[in-house]
Order: sequence, then C-alpha cells, then structure tokens
Amino acid sequence: MESSVPGRSTSRPVGRTVGDVGERAVLAELIGAVDESAARGAGASDITVVGTGDDAAVFAASGDTAISTDTIVEGRHFRLDLSSPREIGARAVVQSVADVAAMGARITGVVVSIAVPGSTDVAVVTEINRGIAGAARDLGAVVLGGDLVAASQIVITVTALGAMDGRAPVLLGGARPGDTLAVSGPLGASAAGLAILLSGRPGPRETFPAFVSAFRVPGPDLAQGVVAARAGARAMTDISDGLIEELITLADKSGVSVAVDSGSVPRPAGLAEAAAALGVDATDWVLAGGEDHQLLAAFAQPGQVPDGWTVIGEVHPPGHGVVVDGVSAGAVRGWQSFGPGAQE
Amino acid sequence: MESSVPGRSTSRPVGRTVGDVGERAVLAELIGAVDESAARGAGASDITVVGTGDDAAVFAASGDTAISTDTIVEGRHFRLDLSSPREIGARAVVQSVADVAAMGARITGVVVSIAVPGSTDVAVVTEINRGIAGAARDLGAVVLGGDLVAASQIVITVTALGAMDGRAPVLLGGARPGDTLAVSGPLGASAAGLAILLSGRPGPRETFPAFVSAFRVPGPDLAQGVVAARAGARAMTDISDGLIEELITLADKSGVSVAVDSGSVPRPAGLAEAAAALGVDATDWVLAGGEDHQLLAAFAQPGQVPDGWTVIGEVHPPGHGVVVDGVSAGAVRGWQSFGPGAQE
Repeated sequence: MESSVPGRSTSRPVGRTVGDVGERAVLAELIGAVDESAARGAGASDITVVGTGDDAAVFAASGDTAISTDTIVEGRHFRLDLSSPREIGARAVVQSVADVAAMGARITGVVVSIAVPGSTDVAVVTEINRGIAGAARDLGAVVLGGDLVAASQIVITVTALGAMDGRAPVLLGGARPGDTLAVSGPLGASAAGLAILLSGRPGPRETFPAFVSAFRVPGPDLAQGVVAARAGARAMTDISDGLIEELITLADKSGVSVAVDSGSVPRPAGLAEAAAALGVDATDWVLAGGEDHQLLAAFAQPGQVPDGWTVIGEVHPPGHGVVVDGVSAGAVRGWQSFGPGAQE
Repeated sequence: MESSVPGRSTSRPVGRTVGDVGERAVLAELIGAVDESAARGAGASDITVVGTGDDAAVFAASGDTAISTDTIVEGRHFRLDLSSPREIGARAVVQSVADVAAMGARITGVVVSIAVPGSTDVAVVTEINRGIAGAARDLGAVVLGGDLVAASQIVITVTALGAMDGRAPVLLGGARPGDTLAVSGPLGASAAGLAILLSGRPGPRETFPAFVSAFRVPGPDLAQGVVAARAGARAMTDISDGLIEELITLADKSGVSVAVDSGSVPRPAGLAEAAAALGVDATDWVLAGGEDHQLLAAFAQPGQVPDGWTVIGEVHPPGHGVVVDGVSAGAVRGWQSFGPGAQE
C-alpha cells in the first residue's frame, strides 16, 4: 500500500486534477474511502448514527462533549516539499485531536474541511484523506463528515470531538500553588525534525529519521489526556506552541507562577547529537520548539502523576510568571501563526 | 453600530494588521467579543459548559447530535468588493447551519476557523467575527470556539451542531414514489443578487436591493427544518447548489424519479423585473441558481406540508431521473466549486 504514496513534489499534476473531475466526484471518492476505512476499523463507529454523504452526520452523544477546531495552511504549517500529502492529513488530525485530549476527553470523532487548488492531482487529495482517516482511526475517532473546496493553497481544518464520560473538563485555569507540573512525553523532536529538514543536509536527515517523522506527524499518546484526568489533573493543555508558551498561558489562566527545571524535561533519545550535528542548542527545541503535542498538566499531589509522565516543575503563588532554571522566561516565546514569532 | 463596518475594499490596511498584532492577541479579542455577544443573547448558551478560550469547548449534548462543516473561500464563494466582512462571516454561518437544519435538527452551536492574510486589517477580522456571532445568535447557535491562522486568502470554515431532540434524522435517501415535494421559501434571490452585482450596473442594484442582500447573506428560515421533521418529512436537503442539482441528489440517494413544475416553484417578488432589467431568464436563477439555502423536502401526504411551504412536484418510481415541466433535466446542473459549473 505504501508504494502508492505520491512523491513529495506535487507542483506538476501527473494524473486527473480536482478541477478536471469536479468537487462532487472527488468528495464521493473520499467518502467511500473513509466509509471503507471505518468498516475495517475497531468498532469506533458505534457513535455514528448517520455517516458522511448526507447534508450532515449524526452521532450519538451522551453528556458533555468537547469540541475544538484547528487549521493548517500550506507554506505556513506544512510544505509539500517537506511532508507527503498523507503525512499532512495525519498531522492535521493529531493537532486538532490534541486540543480535545487536553480537556480530559475520550476522542470520538472528527469532521474535516479540505481546500485545494483546482490544479491539484486527485491522488494528492486522496492521500491527504487517507492520512486523515488513518490518524483518526489510530486515535479512536470516526471521520463523521467533510467538505472539499477550491482555494489558492491547501488549507485543512479538522474539528475534533471527544466525550467527557462524566468527568469534569480539565481547564487551563485550574493550577494552584503547590501543584506538581508534569508532561506526558519527550519534547523537542518535532522542532529537531524541522531544523534537520530546513538545513537541507542529507546526513542529519539519514541519521535522525525519527525526528523528521516526528515533525511530519507528531506521535504523542493522546489517550494520556483521559489518564491524567482520571488521576486528578487540575489543569492541562497540549504543547503546540512550545513548552514556555504553554506555561505562560497556564500560569496566566490559573493566576499562578510556575517554576521549571529545564534539565528535568524529558528529551527524545539522540536530541543532543542532532543539535550538535546542526551546531545549535537542543534546549531551544525542548523549551520553545512546539508542535510535539505532548500534554502538560498540573497535579495536586506528586503521587497523582501517572506512570510514564515526567515531573518538570511546580506551581507557585502569583507574581513571578514563568521561571526556568531560576530565570524569568517571559521573553522566550514559542511559535505563533503571525507576528515576530512566525515560522516564516 | 453599523457605521463601524469597514468599506468593501480592504486591499489597503488602514489600521493595525493581524501580522502587527499577532494571532493570539486578535483571537483573544474575538473571543471576548463572542462571549459578550453570547451574554447579550437569548440564553442559548445554556448548552455551553466551557466556552471559548480553553483548548477546547465543552457543551452538554443529550442524544443524537447533527454535525456538518462548510468552507467558503475568498474569490470563489465571496469577493470583498461584493460583500462586507460582516456579511461574509454571516454567510459562512448560514451556509453551514443550513446543512444541519436539513437533517431536522435544532441548531445549537458552531465552531469557526478563520484564515486571513497577515496583512489583513484587524478590523476586517473583527467584522467577520461580528458577522459570525450575529448570524449564530439569530439562528439560535452558540459560538463554541474558533481558530485564527494566516493564509494567502480568506478561508472561513464553520462547523455547525444541532440537537435531534429525539427525532430521527431526515436523510436524503428517504423519498418514496407518491411523496409530495415542497420547498420552504422562494428561490432565485441569491443568484439574482449575484447577477446584479456582476453586471456592474447601479440601476438594478438600487432597484433590487433585496436580491443583493440575499446574495450577500441568505436569509432562509432554518427553523423550518425542525418544523418539517415534526410534520413527517421523509427526505430533506438544503438548496445550496441549485434546485435541480439538489433534486438530482435526492432522486439518486432515494432511488426514485422526481417531477417538478417550474411554474409552481415560489419566486421572490420582483424577480421577473430584475431578470428583464438584465435581459436574462429568471427561471435559470430559480432552477439552477443556488445559494438560497431554502429547504427541499419530501412528504408522504400533501396534508403534511407545513404552512408556508410550497408544493413544487412529486416523487415517482425510478427510471426518469429529474423531470422539469415534462423534460429530463439531467443536463442542467447547478453550481460546483470546481469543474465546468464553477462560478469562475
């Protein structure tokens, strides 16, 4: 199956374009593929009452439902020369689902909008859709519906849904002085992967393929959102804009200060070597890199921190903002779509 | 309040741009505006458990929930020289909500993604948001959350949610031979408005302002979706791509033929005069114009057709497709985002 993935350069359509075939026909193909994929899935589609292909989907919700929407844009959040269409689709899903997981919700479904230039090869759209369907299935989500429109660049919006299953939502503003801060997994892999790709150097790309993969499709265990909520997490978010940026938001919303020891933040194996190969400081990737989508949470008691999570610091009374290794980190900012911190 | 609407031409930013201010700051402004708007609203926010401003929103769902997503793109679905930013935001909501209404759902909420160039004046984004919030409030929906990203053109994705309240979803495939076809309101106004604007002639624009308004923000009574479902509608859809296109879809999904009398399709007052002024045939606007977002439904008994709806034809056994005034209408197609039927 993997051999059918088109190459990373898609500027020259080699087959039928979306404009040739028409929106409805392509959408029908996508829906067929998703339905087939769901039929092969692990029964997660028991939430679907009416699937794709009607005006709207209908799903069975019982009680509080989390919902979030997230958009990725060609040339800004991804580049077709750095990621395959399938990877781009998968990444869009991970990114949106992470926001719902960060509420402590069990992921249930996604709806998707894909905008592409009319000159786009249909195979590219099919691959984006495959990436979406595959990532959704891996994360326990049903693709409930979608839209396909023409635009001047590829824009993918994923709206993710999750079930609270009777749990209270874990907010950004729930951290209290004395809480223990922990993260669900290592940080810095995605930023390292992007740096490796942008360096244009084949050596690092071949030596550190895991980082390149982590940039293309982050692989956090988003089931940890439910695990953390069950364990009593009082505040939680996913790390999309870099650890420091998320700490600033959490401290601000909670009305607290936070202190973190950068040495205790877990790093993926090989990160120091990759940084050395590129002549940069790995700590920047870890603290400000973003896009890893691991979870950051505050727990009242250190004993509540779930297995596999790593304690990185603690919550203090307000007044000091975010302190990293004893130094105020107000000036260190992560990634934003616009403004001085933008990727390009 | 209306005097604060920026002009229709936004190519030259006159104030702060989104790039100047940064994504987070603008998003915070938008969220503040929406929360304020919801607080002034008619109590529809009782579905919201956690509002905008956290990783995800959480809403109280009880039972089957309809969901649909719809995207509009600058230069394709709207033009900033033809519509104001506020109108564009409102239109995005109407278009997406119509799909949920067509399931027979009561509209409850929307989540929104707005992509704009970094050079966009913040006031334009604020106005798009105002249009979204206003239209959502008018339709009984809470703005549950949103995202704001940079892109090369304006792309707005609205995901709409509705509650089935114990009713069965009204599908596209439920029409049966002998059913009566009806529409919830007049057709052709939006297409007339677009034609008037594209003609560039000020006369028709001043004589027929209602059509221009209908193009900029369609105003169907989408509460009729619930009315039709309660009345026993067996199949329903919203008329987004033109009546004939929707009839083709409904006939196909239901495995039936349909016969319609074009003279019985309700037309807005003044349509013939507007068509005469432009030297075109009003029937094209009525049958293939699209974008009115009125509802089309099939009822088993003529007596079930709700007050205010108009009977336009009937359902027959399969084999004849869509027949209009005794002639097969297979060749007359409505509007599609791509392909030969595309608007531009």
